[in-house]
Order: sequence, then C-alpha cells, then structure tokens
Amino acid sequence: MNGCWDYGPLGVELLKNIKEEWWKVMTYREDVEGIDAAILMHPRVWEASGHVENFTDPMIDCKQCKSRFRLDVLGDSISEKRQTKAINELKNKLNGKDDLLQELEGIYADPGDEDPFNLVLENERLGKLLLEELNCPQCGNKNTFTEARKFNLMFKTFIGPVEDTNAVVYLRPETAQGIYVNFLNVQSASRQKLPFGIAQIGKAFRNEINTKNFLFRTREFEQMEMQFFINPKEDEKWYAYWKEARLNWFKSLGMTPSKLRYHDHPADKLAHYAKEATDIEYEFPFGWGEIEGIHNRTNFDLGRHEEFSGKSLKYFDEAAKEKYIPYIIETSAGASRSFMAFLVDSYYEEEVKGEKRAVLKFHPRLAPIKTAIFPLVNKDGMPEIARKIEADLRRSLKVFYDDKGAVGRRYRRQDEAGTPYCITVDTQTLEDQTVTVRERDSMEQERVAIDQLAGYVLNKIHSK
Amino acid sequence: MNGCWDYGPLGVELLKNIKEEWWKVMTYREDVEGIDAAILMHPRVWEASGHVENFTDPMIDCKQCKSRFRLDVLGDSISEKRQTKAINELKNKLNGKDDLLQELEGIYADPGDEDPFNLVLENERLGKLLLEELNCPQCGNKNTFTEARKFNLMFKTFIGPVEDTNAVVYLRPETAQGIYVNFLNVQSASRQKLPFGIAQIGKAFRNEINTKNFLFRTREFEQMEMQFFINPKEDEKWYAYWKEARLNWFKSLGMTPSKLRYHDHPADKLAHYAKEATDIEYEFPFGWGEIEGIHNRTNFDLGRHEEFSGKSLKYFDEAAKEKYIPYIIETSAGASRSFMAFLVDSYYEEEVKGEKRAVLKFHPRLAPIKTAIFPLVNKDGMPEIARKIEADLRRSLKVFYDDKGAVGRRYRRQDEAGTPYCITVDTQTLEDQTVTVRERDSMEQERVAIDQLAGYVLNKIHSK
Repeated sequence: MNGCWDYGPLGVELLKNIKEEWWKVMTYREDVEGIDAAILMHPRVWEASGHVENFTDPMIDCKQCKSRFRLDVLGDSISEKRQTKAINELKNKLNGKDDLLQELEGIYADPGDEDPFNLVLENERLGKLLLEELNCPQCGNKNTFTEARKFNLMFKTFIGPVEDTNAVVYLRPETAQGIYVNFLNVQSASRQKLPFGIAQIGKAFRNEINTKNFLFRTREFEQMEMQFFINPKEDEKWYAYWKEARLNWFKSLGMTPSKLRYHDHPADKLAHYAKEATDIEYEFPFGWGEIEGIHNRTNFDLGRHEEFSGKSLKYFDEAAKEKYIPYIIETSAGASRSFMAFLVDSYYEEEVKGEKRAVLKFHPRLAPIKTAIFPLVNKDGMPEIARKIEADLRRSLKVFYDDKGAVGRRYRRQDEAGTPYCITVDTQTLEDQTVTVRERDSMEQERVAIDQLAGYVLNKIHSK
Repeated sequence: MNGCWDYGPLGVELLKNIKEEWWKVMTYREDVEGIDAAILMHPRVWEASGHVENFTDPMIDCKQCKSRFRLDVLGDSISEKRQTKAINELKNKLNGKDDLLQELEGIYADPGDEDPFNLVLENERLGKLLLEELNCPQCGNKNTFTEARKFNLMFKTFIGPVEDTNAVVYLRPETAQGIYVNFLNVQSASRQKLPFGIAQIGKAFRNEINTKNFLFRTREFEQMEMQFFINPKEDEKWYAYWKEARLNWFKSLGMTPSKLRYHDHPADKLAHYAKEATDIEYEFPFGWGEIEGIHNRTNFDLGRHEEFSGKSLKYFDEAAKEKYIPYIIETSAGASRSFMAFLVDSYYEEEVKGEKRAVLKFHPRLAPIKTAIFPLVNKDGMPEIARKIEADLRRSLKVFYDDKGAVGRRYRRQDEAGTPYCITVDTQTLEDQTVTVRERDSMEQERVAIDQLAGYVLNKIHSK
C-alpha cells in the first residue's frame, strides 16, 4: 500500500491549518465562492475533460514473467553500464539509418531535465528497437517486452450491483472538473459577475505506478484548487495577478523565499489545454519540486463540457455587451505537497548552551499546538493556576499541558513540535498573578498578567 | 449518479462550520487526539473488520429480464393489494406446515419498526416461497427470481496496473478502522494513557442500491468519528458519558430538543461487535432518522486486528497493573446527516407586517455568512464607510456586501441565508460613527460604534 499516508495528531493539525489559511485567503474575498463537489462524478465528465483518453502512462509487459513496467522510467532500474551497452548495440543496429542515428544523438545532446535513456525508451521508433536490447529487470530474460500500451491513471470502480462497463465510475484525479461542471450553477445562485472564481479543497486519486519522495508522489492526496473565470481579453492580467498572489501566499506564511521559484513552462511543453503555465517550485531535500501550478486554461474546459453535455456554458457579459465562453486561470496547489514543504522548511537545529536544540519554526497560525502550559513545580498551588489558564485557552486554541520533567526539557519538546508560545506558572505567579510567555524562535520571555493572557496570545498569532 | 452530492457556496460553509465545531469540542481536549487516515487502506483491514464477509445486502436477479433488486426492500415496489394477494397464496401453500404458518403470523403480529412483507422476504425459509408468488417489478413475469445472494457494499478498485484479485483495494465504508489500526502508534507517539480517544473526520463510501432522502442515504458521505479506548471495567461509565455528551452537542448548537431522541438498540438486535448501542435520532420531515450512533464495541475490533496482523494490540495499564485489549466506546456522527438535520431544523417562516419572512435560524457559529454590510443608500460617503467595515471584518469572518435594492429586501435575503447579523451604514453614521446591527431572529437593532464593531460581532458569535 505505497502512496497512501495517514496523518498523526500533530500532522492533522498542520494540514488543517494550511487548508484553513488557504480557504480564508481564497474564499473570504468578494469575488470567489467555495464549493465541495463529490469525489465520484459522472463518467462522462472524464470523457469531456480528456482524462479517459489522455491521462495515461506508457506501460510494457514482460512476456516471460508477466511483470509490468512503466516505460518512461524503466531506465531507472537499469545500471549505467548496461545502459551504455544497450545504447551501443542500438547504434550498431542503426548502421545505415542515418536519420534514426541522428535522432538518438540529438536526444543525448540535449535531454533537458530528463534522463536521456528514458527519453529514448519513450521515442516511438527508437524505443521499440532499444527494448529488444534490454533484459527484464524481474526475470532477466532478454527481448521479452511487449509493445508499450497506454495505462490510464484513474482509479475505476463500479456503481450499483453489476460490474460491467455501464457501471464504471472513476475516483476523481483532480478537483478542477467538479468546479467546471458547477460553473453556471454557482455563478447564477451567487449572482456573481465575471471575473470571479470558485475554490475547492478535496481529495484526488491517481493510480501512480511509481510513488516516491514521501508525500510528493502519492496515490491519494489533497488539492486546493481555485478556478478564476474571466473575459478572454483579460487573461494576461489575471494570469500575472494570480501568479504573484500565490507565490506571496507561501512567503506570507513564513516559507523561505530563496527556496521558492517559478518554473515557467516553455511554449513547446505546454499541456494541450494551456496557453501559459508556471509551477511554483520548492527546493526539497531531493531537489526542486512543484507545489502549485498556475495555468491559463483558455476556454478549453468549458468548451469541452459544453460540447459533451450539449448545454451552453456561455456567459453574457453585461458590461462588455458580449457573450462568450469564459477563459479560466487556474491556481492548483497540493495540500499534501504544501504540508511537506512547510514541514521541511521549518526544521532547523542549533546549539544552545552546549546542547542541541531542534525546532520547527512554523508560522504561529500553522503550528499544530498554539501554546503549552507548564507549572514550574507540581505543587504550591501552581498546577491549579496552570490548569485554570489551560481551561481558559482551550476554548479557542489547541493547547498542551505538561507537568513532567525539567522545564528546559519541556521547552525542547515543544520546540520540536513547533509550538510558538510556552506559558510557565512560577513562584512569582503566586505573588503577582503574572506568568512568563516564552517565544519559540528567540527564546525570549515576557511577563504577562494572567487576565490578559488569552488576548495576548491570540493577538500574537493573528497579527503575524 | 444518484447518491453523490455537491455542496454549493453556502452549503460548503455550513458543512465546514459543523465539522469545525465537532473538531474543537472533540479534539481540543486533553484526552483526545486527532488523525487523518487514508481512504484507501490495505485490503486485509477489511477482512479483519468483518466487512469483506459481512458488509452485504441480499440481492436477487430476475432470470427473465436480468434486472437486479435488493431483497430486503423489494416490498416497497409492490402495491398493498398485490402484497395481500401474495401473502394469501403463501398461506395456502403452507397448509399443513404449521410451524411455517406460525412463523409467518408471528412476523405480522410484531414487525417492530419494519415492514412485515419485507421481513417475510428476508426470512430464509419463507422468503423463498414468497418469491415464487411475485411478479418482477421490471418485466412483470412471475416466479422468475434467483435465490438471494450477498452483495458487498464496499466499492472496490485496483491498485497498480494489473486488474486482478491481488490488486483489489476498497474505498473505506467507515473511518473507524483507520483509527483502530493506528491505535498503538498514536497512543505511544502522543504518550497518552487510557482512557483516551482518537478522532477523525473524513469521507466514506458505500455502494448503496437504494439511495434516498437527499443526504440521508448516499453513496459518498462524510463521517465524524471518535473512538474512546478504555479499561473494560469502565465501559458502562464511559458509554453513559459519551451518550449524554453527544446529544448535548446537537442541542448546544441550537437543534430543537424535542426533535432529538435516543433509540437504544434492544439486546437481540445489536450488531455482532456491540455490547450496547444507541442511535441519536432527529425527526426529519420523512420521519425519525439516525444522525449519530454511540456504541460499546468491546474489544472486538482491536482483538480482530491483533488476530489478523499478528501484532499485539494489548495495553499495559500502569495504574491498574494489568494488561488487556482496550474496550472501545465509539461516537460515530454523520457530517452529511448532521448538515441536513441542522438545515431543516433551522428553517421557519413567519409573517412580518403582512409579508412572509423565511429564516434559517442557524447558530451563529454554524451560519455560512456571519455578517452582511449594507450602505443605506449608495452615495453620500456611505459606500466608502461600509467598504471599510467590510474589509476590516473580512480578515476574520465570512461576510457579504450588498448595496442593491431596498434595505428590507436585503435583510430578507440574509434571513434566508441564515446570516445572524446585518450591519447598516446610515445617515446617523455620518454624524456619530455608529452603525445599526440587526439581529436575525429578533430583528432588533442596536447602535454600535464602528471602532468596536469587530469585537462586538466576534463576541456575539463566540459567546452563544
């Protein structure tokens, strides 16, 4: 069961907080509405979207041992020595076929970001010949591969009691289509005028053959998508607007700016539906990876749904006095990938008074636990006061009470969980009804009156 | 595509707010941890849970037209006249078989809450004989039904590229099992001692043959479940505690007490895993229906997972100095069903000054929109002030700005959406920097200074 992850007690809070921040910034606007569409949608939706036809990986089978492999990553399981040998044998075979030889050399000369061996495998004419030179990574036999076939990445299931083709439905591979089919519904019910957007957070599923890098490539994941419907004439303006806004969002929640960049898709590598596209990438320990995509999808999606449903999805623009299928600027963020980016970005270690301190420096609004409350010693009335403070804060915040061990160790434990504020009840508390509030990153302590504590902490969390 | 629903802009907020209230009350406690487990789990989990074997409906096919029917509700599609005729014919057939005749009469004498005709159909010996007397509701032919077979209600799909039995995985039919398999993980990572609980909100899927009553019986739905792990000796205490706490939760959010009741399951109708069970029922327009179940599941679940995984799930209770498999008290609420209950419970109509007023009297914390802001007229500086108020409130609340039409109509529109507070900027505002805040249910208006508005509204929402 690779590629499906469970979030534990701290993880679920971090994930919830990321989603909540996204939801607030994206839907507490006048020009964006939220929805929550079902995971199981009518199968015709995925014909219209192109997923039934195009959402595929090339797969090959070994005729001998019946193992199945993804063609475009087969090279990853073949040693460099064997790769060189196979390419040399391929070159021998191409003797006299100068056009193919040139194509082969062209791929090696400029493979871009990708592995040239895998690119050759995926090449329609060269791949077939190269496969004949390879041994199956499973059984070791040579020249036993079938031709490559398309394998659809959508999970399918059957609705109702009969398992036949009429009953096939898919688990959605993206949340976007749930927004497109609801476009006119939402627009008219909420009386929105263009430009306006529809936002959604939800699970999506892809039957990936190779899951990898923890939460980065999984079979089950969560998306935070917003589709912004606009007059086609304004596409460049809104594309630029959302491109900037979305990168800033990550920065506003404390993600290191130097670890964020745009990767603009070159015109010859754009998806079939896109006029412009950029990835917001984060520099993970394993390299740069996409955490959000911003796309100018033109009128492709609504046009296709109009065609397949037979119902007009045109919009009458009263201001411009024209009728058109809106263009869509899409902002598609991975909630799971954002989770991983915020997690690794927050981690650091330092030495404090000769001891290692490990910290998750989460933005206070993302931190799973907002405050921890410690009685300095477990007697002299301190636990009673600490428990009262805890009960008071617990009504609006996720808090943690800890009365075990030295206070230094209790601080370290909260540093590791990313708790931004620790409150300690000490002897002075008994005299003047104040406590210390210790900030995680600076480790500075401030004395705050108990009756102002809730306001103090809430203000700290929300003013950042 | 029956039984899969999309939530629109107001619906998604109501659903989110219900889930948020549940999450806070259930996990902002010292003795409950939250998690978020995957929808796709290892298939052995569902063998251990008993779902592969037992989570079934009895189905029959018509041999003539190949239609398929759920046996236990077949009677619903047969007229009373035909039912009487079939039962009389069955009685004739039973002439001489006194034990079967007695059984038949016994069912009709005390059918409980269920339809006696369907109970006879489900009866192993009587059902077979009764089926012979019935016509297929689809093609009309008589005596054409196959014997009843078990149909599993779990949606199944295939993980990886090969669609064979080794690759079968299920969409979870409940979130509970994701908690059970994580029990020791969470317990040790969070250093909890018994009694403590694990809570989760998430989607679940059931391939229901008969979906009905809007959100009540659907194929895709959302659950809010908490599993409370306890010393077996304390099961009655905690069962009573959670039974009371959960009913109170619905009341605390304004649900009409007289429309809520317990339905305790009689001992002879308990599920195989349960020692005690009760439904919290709400009186929907279609009758009483379960919105949450509280169950004493004993050590059944952890015992089964221990057996199937071969890994000990026993807990060493330091206080009691004993080792045991914990008992579980489960609180299993439907988020979708709660949504429907809060929705229908909130709706009322009344006459105000000769005109009908329709209101959704949502608890302020559940209301999709918290405040609406109106400039009385769209000039004289009022829009500027209203927009400033809007921008200020929007940072922490979902608000709505409306400057169209008479203020009376704007109020009515917000009443229908369940917005608890409407703020109007009027001529007096220009003089003394105060606005009116109008409360939805009482329709009473209060003047509040603009600089105290955010605090005033937030306090109203959170103090209720």
